[in-house]
Amino acid sequence: MCPAKISESAVRRLSLYLRVLDAFELAGKTTVSSGDLAERGGVTPAQVRKDLSHFGSFGKRGLGYPVSELRERVTEILGLGRRWRVGLVGAGKLGAALFFYDGFRGQGFDVAAIFDNDPDKIGQRWGRLVVEDIESMDRVMRTSQVEMGIIVTPAVSAQQVADRLIASGVEAILNFAPTRLQVPPGITLRNVNLEIELESLAFALTHENGA
Amino acid sequence: MCPAKISESAVRRLSLYLRVLDAFELAGKTTVSSGDLAERGGVTPAQVRKDLSHFGSFGKRGLGYPVSELRERVTEILGLGRRWRVGLVGAGKLGAALFFYDGFRGQGFDVAAIFDNDPDKIGQRWGRLVVEDIESMDRVMRTSQVEMGIIVTPAVSAQQVADRLIASGVEAILNFAPTRLQVPPGITLRNVNLEIELESLAFALTHENGA
Repeated sequence: MCPAKISESAVRRLSLYLRVLDAFELAGKTTVSSGDLAERGGVTPAQVRKDLSHFGSFGKRGLGYPVSELRERVTEILGLGRRWRVGLVGAGKLGAALFFYDGFRGQGFDVAAIFDNDPDKIGQRWGRLVVEDIESMDRVMRTSQVEMGIIVTPAVSAQQVADRLIASGVEAILNFAPTRLQVPPGITLRNVNLEIELESLAFALTHENGA
Repeated sequence: MCPAKISESAVRRLSLYLRVLDAFELAGKTTVSSGDLAERGGVTPAQVRKDLSHFGSFGKRGLGYPVSELRERVTEILGLGRRWRVGLVGAGKLGAALFFYDGFRGQGFDVAAIFDNDPDKIGQRWGRLVVEDIESMDRVMRTSQVEMGIIVTPAVSAQQVADRLIASGVEAILNFAPTRLQVPPGITLRNVNLEIELESLAFALTHENGA
């Protein structure tokens, strides 16, 4: 019950275990072994038992864990027992891809506001939302009760956008812009950059082939 | 000139430096300082000088680096002086978002084949491509000369897909499925999972608020 002790990588493993639990529940299975969970998480069964022991006592030695009880508990630990309101900044191609992809909704994340600074984009209708002027972020964020920000702007504007999100009260940011952002303590930042991942594959292939 | 010594994180920094160089070139600037590059990479100017010194001697102390020469060199080091042919496995929502996002093309990555195992998706036209049956991967991969694979299948099929990609000769994989894949030595694997990143924000907000 000591979430403060849980590392970022342990949290990621919980997310992976949750996928196994979802699949087992869907398949009508009632118990899951630490081995089943370990396989998906890319760890040892001992690591699974250690990860789960932080959150209380589950299962019996040799009998495995009860799927639906553990699933409920991991969902609650990850903060997924509720819905989260997300603000998307950057109404470009990647912003649109993420918005219309719609895969987040199933996990409890709803885009509640979209912002851009381009007059051609401001006012566009995206589903049930309208792209807002980034200048009105402070007001819109308050009325739409956004809790997390997703930055999909060009690299050059990303820091300024992060500063504005934080000034509007956002404490968790997922950054897709290819730049390292500076955030004050207490703000949680995660980075995803698709082009950079592909570039690191290109680097590996180039140098592995002796080119 | 010793790419074998370059760590994964140094390669990522090169990608970030390349963005700065692109922006400087676009702005018509001819020199860039290690400080300019450091800011974007989230590192110190000394680290920038160290990273770049692996690849030969650039710039003069106090005068900065020549933008277009350094940009060309970093492009070449990253293996971006040519185009790469990518195979996308999984013609679902996220696969479609990535395919139609189209942001990869500008960086030199072309989707050359799309696969699925769903009879309803096989045969669909996506741009100038047709979704192929995953059963014909081996043949299609050879004729389309795919070098990298992107996996956007459900977690449960991802390992089997990775094994097939590798058997078809692919040596670099970007995995979006929420599972840890096992690949043999010599295969480069990168993982991106958007839901898991959002879940780690949810975890942080939940526990930070004492919930």
